[in-house]
Formats: sequence, C-alpha cells, structure tokens
Amino acid sequence: MNPTITAFEASPDRGRGLARDMPVRWALEEVGQPYEVRLVSFEAMKAPAHLALHPFGQIPTYEEDDLALFESGAIILHIAERHAGLLPKDANARARAVAWMFAALNTMEPPIVELSMATVLERDKSWYAARLPMLEERVRGRLDELADRLGDADWLDGGFSAGDLLMVTVLRRAQAAGRLGDHPSLSAYIARGEARPAYQRAFADQLAVFTALSSG
Amino acid sequence: MNPTITAFEASPDRGRGLARDMPVRWALEEVGQPYEVRLVSFEAMKAPAHLALHPFGQIPTYEEDDLALFESGAIILHIAERHAGLLPKDANARARAVAWMFAALNTMEPPIVELSMATVLERDKSWYAARLPMLEERVRGRLDELADRLGDADWLDGGFSAGDLLMVTVLRRAQAAGRLGDHPSLSAYIARGEARPAYQRAFADQLAVFTALSSG
Repeated sequence: MNPTITAFEASPDRGRGLARDMPVRWALEEVGQPYEVRLVSFEAMKAPAHLALHPFGQIPTYEEDDLALFESGAIILHIAERHAGLLPKDANARARAVAWMFAALNTMEPPIVELSMATVLERDKSWYAARLPMLEERVRGRLDELADRLGDADWLDGGFSAGDLLMVTVLRRAQAAGRLGDHPSLSAYIARGEARPAYQRAFADQLAVFTALSSG
Repeated sequence: MNPTITAFEASPDRGRGLARDMPVRWALEEVGQPYEVRLVSFEAMKAPAHLALHPFGQIPTYEEDDLALFESGAIILHIAERHAGLLPKDANARARAVAWMFAALNTMEPPIVELSMATVLERDKSWYAARLPMLEERVRGRLDELADRLGDADWLDGGFSAGDLLMVTVLRRAQAAGRLGDHPSLSAYIARGEARPAYQRAFADQLAVFTALSSG
C-alpha cells in the first residue's frame, strides 16, 4: 500500500506550493515513493475524524499501514530514514542534516511566518507600519546568518539533504512575501532546490489540485 | 570523553530553566549521560568561534568527539537515538514520539514565543493592548487542542518520551508568561514532567550557574 497524505482541498496560496504538503510531496518524489493524496476542506480539518489524525487540525498527515503521523518535519524525517536519498550515510553527517531540518522549522521559519502573517492579518491596522521594521529586521538577521554559513556552497552541509529540502521550503515563504532582500546566494540556493526534478514533479502535482478546482 | 554543551554565562531568565540548554540537560539526565558545560557570554555567542559551532549564534551547542551539533531539537533527538529512555523501541511509536518533538517546537512554541516576546519588547507600545487578545487567542487555541488530545493520560502517547520532554519545556514558557490559562490537565502534565528526578537534577544544575554568578 502506498502512503496517503492529506492536502488542502482549496489551496489558500493558489497553487504556489507554499502549503505544508509541498515539502512532504517533494521528499516522497526525491526517494521515489508513490503516494496517494486525500484532499480536506477547512471545515473537515477541524472535525473529529481529521483531529484523530492531526491533533491541531492541520495538513499534512501521513498514513502508511498502521502508522499515522502529523507534523511535516516528522513525516519527512520518517521518509528520509526509510529510504535512501535524503540523509547522508555517515552518522555524524546525518545528525548535522537533521540539525538543519530543525533549524529550518524552529529557527528560520518562525520570524518568516510572523512577518508573513502580519502582512496578511494586520496590514490595515494603525500599527502595521510602525511594527514592520522590527519584523523585517528579525528575518533579515536570520537570512544574513544563513547566507554567511552557506557561503558559496551548493547545499548547507555536503550533498543535498532533507535539511536543504526544508530550508528551501521555508526560504520560499520569505521570497513569496518579498522579504528575501539582497541575498543573491540564497536566491540561487532556492533556485537549485526548485530545479531538482523531484521538486518539479511535486510542484506540478500540488498545482494540479488548484487548476482542477479553478476549471471545475 | 563526555559531551560538552554550551549555556548562557548570564542566564537571562534568572535561573528559571527557560533557556534552551534546559531540555538538553534534562535529556542527558534522563539517559544518564554525564556532560560538561561551557558558558558563553552574549558577546561571545556572536563571535566567529561560536558561529562556527552555531550558525545563528545561539545556545545550546553539543560537541562529542568529532561531532558538533546545534538546535536543541536535533541534539535531543541525537541523544535519544543513542541511549535508551527517550524513545519507544517500537518503530511506529518511535515515529509518533518524534512527531511530538516537532509539534512542540514547530506548532506549539511559535505562538507562545510570539506572545512572550511581545510582552517583553512591546509592552510600552501604543498597540500592545490592542494586539494582545489576538496573540492570546493563538496560544489558547493550541493549548485547547493539546489538552483535548492529552485527555486524562499522563503523557502524549504511551510512556514518557522526548516528545513529552520538549512539550513540557515549551508549556513551561507559556506558564512562566502567565498564559497557561484554565488548563488544569496541562498544569498537571507540566508538574509530572518537573517531578521527574532527571528534570530536577537538570534544573538544579542550570540554576547553580545563576546563583554562582549572583553570589560571585
């Protein structure tokens, strides 16, 4: 049985691949694992059947035989541990790649999401302009530090890993919000990720959900 | 050689155990692994020697033979994979415990940190009171969902795991900020974590850094 993931029935990003099913699709494509997709509405996400799979009523989930998982980071780590292609074989290099997975989700993503959410939810508020420089500075600081570490390397630590997969995914959110700034090395890093055939297959598949809806 | 972790030289939380060395100390105590601590100043955290260990200039780091790691989640996963006591042996249960680690750090923590940071950095701003209900609601929603899932169980999924260790750590931040609200089951969950002998040893050790400084 192929694993089944869940994704938004109506993609709130209009198919730009910014939802959290995208990195899971990408990981499955990198390792060559076919998968099924079950689309869920916003209403169904908060209903008991889905909450049994995902305590916080979000997507994606991952079901495989008698295993049910939530949290995109955990799903990708699970895939990476069971297939070749997303983590180095050397134990120390593998631990460092996992560190980049956590860094993407716990250090880089929060200020980017905070800024993105403010631009969506607080744009009309009186304080929006006054707070914006603070939010931008938090993102810029992280991007500067990441660019310093990446240097002129292709990937964060040796070959492409699940750490890069998640970091590129998170950076795409900053880029989509117009907050990547003057970091040409990070733009090139994102482009290298997006150029991977597995990324392109995953992107096309998540976009197809939206275009099917639009024409339906 | 025992592993060496880094911690704040001057604890910004005055020894309340809210800094990110605390869960790493706790994990090491749970598995019975002795460790060394190297204290770093805020200035030294942003200097090249520390940035070589931690690209974002933070604590904790973890050094063990020729492995250097950063990100508390990754360090704890590394410890949990190499010692018994923090992850179940059953593969599916293990994957679910890892999902709770990511849930603590990527789903529960960001709104709690956002609220805590606002109360520290924006308390004197004109918009503070107007934004506060929105921030509180984001935290409350997550806490409600977590309490629903926990129910009357002792731990999130079977026995105590690294997922509980990180979730209790994150919830302590909400509690310290006075934002745990009316969730007696979550208060009891935190208390169960804090009652563990390994937690108490870790807490005493991080507190000793601060009391030594105060009396020095």
